[in-house]
Amino acid sequence: MRDSFPPLSPPKRLLLGPGPSPVEPRVYEALRKPIVGHLDPYLFDVAAEIRELLQCVFETRNELTLVVSGTGTSGMEAAISNFVEPGAKVAVFVNGYFCERIAEMVRRQGAELVRLERPWGEAFDAGEAREFIRRERPAVVAFVHGETSTGVVQDGKAICEAAHEVDAIVIADTVTTLGNMPVKVDETGIDVAYSCSQKGLACTPGLAPITVSPRAAERLRQRSAPNPSFYLDLRLLEDYYHNRRYHHTASASLLYAMREALAIVHEEGLERRFDRIRTNHRAFVAGVEAMGLAMLVAEPYRLWPLNTPRLPEGIDDVQVRQYLLHEFGIEVLGGFGPLAGKVLRVGIMGAGSTKENVLAVLEALERALASQGWRPKASGREAAEAFYARLSASPASTGAQA
Amino acid sequence: MRDSFPPLSPPKRLLLGPGPSPVEPRVYEALRKPIVGHLDPYLFDVAAEIRELLQCVFETRNELTLVVSGTGTSGMEAAISNFVEPGAKVAVFVNGYFCERIAEMVRRQGAELVRLERPWGEAFDAGEAREFIRRERPAVVAFVHGETSTGVVQDGKAICEAAHEVDAIVIADTVTTLGNMPVKVDETGIDVAYSCSQKGLACTPGLAPITVSPRAAERLRQRSAPNPSFYLDLRLLEDYYHNRRYHHTASASLLYAMREALAIVHEEGLERRFDRIRTNHRAFVAGVEAMGLAMLVAEPYRLWPLNTPRLPEGIDDVQVRQYLLHEFGIEVLGGFGPLAGKVLRVGIMGAGSTKENVLAVLEALERALASQGWRPKASGREAAEAFYARLSASPASTGAQA
Repeated sequence: MRDSFPPLSPPKRLLLGPGPSPVEPRVYEALRKPIVGHLDPYLFDVAAEIRELLQCVFETRNELTLVVSGTGTSGMEAAISNFVEPGAKVAVFVNGYFCERIAEMVRRQGAELVRLERPWGEAFDAGEAREFIRRERPAVVAFVHGETSTGVVQDGKAICEAAHEVDAIVIADTVTTLGNMPVKVDETGIDVAYSCSQKGLACTPGLAPITVSPRAAERLRQRSAPNPSFYLDLRLLEDYYHNRRYHHTASASLLYAMREALAIVHEEGLERRFDRIRTNHRAFVAGVEAMGLAMLVAEPYRLWPLNTPRLPEGIDDVQVRQYLLHEFGIEVLGGFGPLAGKVLRVGIMGAGSTKENVLAVLEALERALASQGWRPKASGREAAEAFYARLSASPASTGAQA
Repeated sequence: MRDSFPPLSPPKRLLLGPGPSPVEPRVYEALRKPIVGHLDPYLFDVAAEIRELLQCVFETRNELTLVVSGTGTSGMEAAISNFVEPGAKVAVFVNGYFCERIAEMVRRQGAELVRLERPWGEAFDAGEAREFIRRERPAVVAFVHGETSTGVVQDGKAICEAAHEVDAIVIADTVTTLGNMPVKVDETGIDVAYSCSQKGLACTPGLAPITVSPRAAERLRQRSAPNPSFYLDLRLLEDYYHNRRYHHTASASLLYAMREALAIVHEEGLERRFDRIRTNHRAFVAGVEAMGLAMLVAEPYRLWPLNTPRLPEGIDDVQVRQYLLHEFGIEVLGGFGPLAGKVLRVGIMGAGSTKENVLAVLEALERALASQGWRPKASGREAAEAFYARLSASPASTGAQA
């Protein structure tokens, strides 16, 4: 082994995949601030600010709102392990990889899993969602608000209404939506929503925000068997963050980063932020469609932060991604499972959702496809530029309504 | 809510509690480096360096050596949830808070728990350890190498030998010892050891190193029921780190920090590092004993990184700690459970183990006790200074042998 190790010099990447997204410079500054202990009064002040700011971005008044010390997947596991008891019936809407992951976690908890399926890339309509829940009468319903594997957004309103009719609680995966598009936890009726730090919030990975309705919190208190996970036990986490009782050594560095990321979201304002992300999504779509690529997902079901253009026949997706990475330093990812090799996953989210990035990725994508001999119908970059020009020419427009 | 949030300005603390310990400046620099994605080739290069460096500090050749994306408690849960199956007999050595936490996790896995107990502050001797294991013939044995709640170090040799006689695997908690004193995983015969980032390694909290012997890895592959935890499933984590197959979004920031912290440990060298920490521990003990305070733990069983002096009768430990925090910016913590109010937990570990810090905490402690009317027999600071002077006067000494 070497005697000494030079300082790390990571390559500069433009992170336009499904996440992590580009980290705000202020977040990097927060990461290097001196840490305090996990029981320091200052850390609890920071945690209280995080709670308040998370309530804003989740659009909820839930008191039990905190960050789990792990990545988004730990947030998913916190939701499932706390609210799914062995033997309970759990209804999962399955139309992508992360829905399958929820189903896998439900199985691991020894619960009874019932599934409603749709092909990857489609969303569930209100009627079939209601019918499924009324027929199955589960104790818990889970759906993915923004399916990171397909680029589909799933409306939660009908799911929540039907679930509450049968006294089920609703778990929503908002990993890709939180901070990128409205999640409206209280208005939708979601009982448990979890997310991650590294997509819509433009923070570094390592924390998972979670929020729990009073109804679900009551269910938690009535739980008979303990959560098999001590680390993710929300009763213990609540006791730590609210009553300052030791549970684990929360990372001051990550909490500083999260507080800073959330402060930036708050300063921009949710409406302006969502408008920005939606506008850049539309510009990107205008660009790829002009090039002659089709979007996997039909128009009303598209996630704003994550775009899934189909690749033309005969194009090798690994070569495209390597070209983008090596020639332009741009990271995008490919499809999973049934979508492997068929789509790209292009994230234009959080702090990375800018006109500059939209134009850069369109141009790079065009060159990557050209390197495999494919010719676009028209320039994607020019089409997107025309979209932005129309937007700013429209007198009523702030970018939001266009 | 406020419209804008000023940049965070955390108070400067001298972290001399049981952890987190002071973070190396180079680690803060690593934290602010630009992140890459969780599937970026560069991140896997960093992860490979981490593995190699962790093998050095664990003193093991185990291939299955990685970091879990969570704090030390997630490392404990990774060890327990992967290796303790429902119904299995698990023998736990219980003489402190973290042993009790292991027992609690074993219960949550639905296993059969058998305990050997000792009062908090004592260690188990080889004879009773062997007798317990031979009598119970468990599938898994767990012990805490460095008990952070009491300051006791537990020798693992006899435990491992007896466990292997009955074909049990041995889990060791090295949360407080890794990077602070020798853990010698292979020589001792430990099958699974886990730790944290924020004590002996002088990194920020948020990651949990873990290492698994080939014997234990084989047991993992033969496991019948899946781990209830998907997030902590070591088979999936191995597949991610070794085969680059997506499992969760590992935090580039934390991996950079861990790589840098481990590089610093490697550059200092384990022997020099352990000598430094032992020497400063002995100086601290010389100081508190000169003051007239007794150590909770008898001499051969004392952890070097974590000291537990008893408080004099009538002294309020909360007041002492608040005095240290507010007058000197020094964090130390108090006792748990049966030791609440009776001891202080003074960590002189990792990068925080310096002569300067030993002298500072002794002087501050003397003042804090004086503020409650207590008078020391002699100056702790002067006694420690005399200790250091004797050390450097000794011709054969490098600090190590003294």
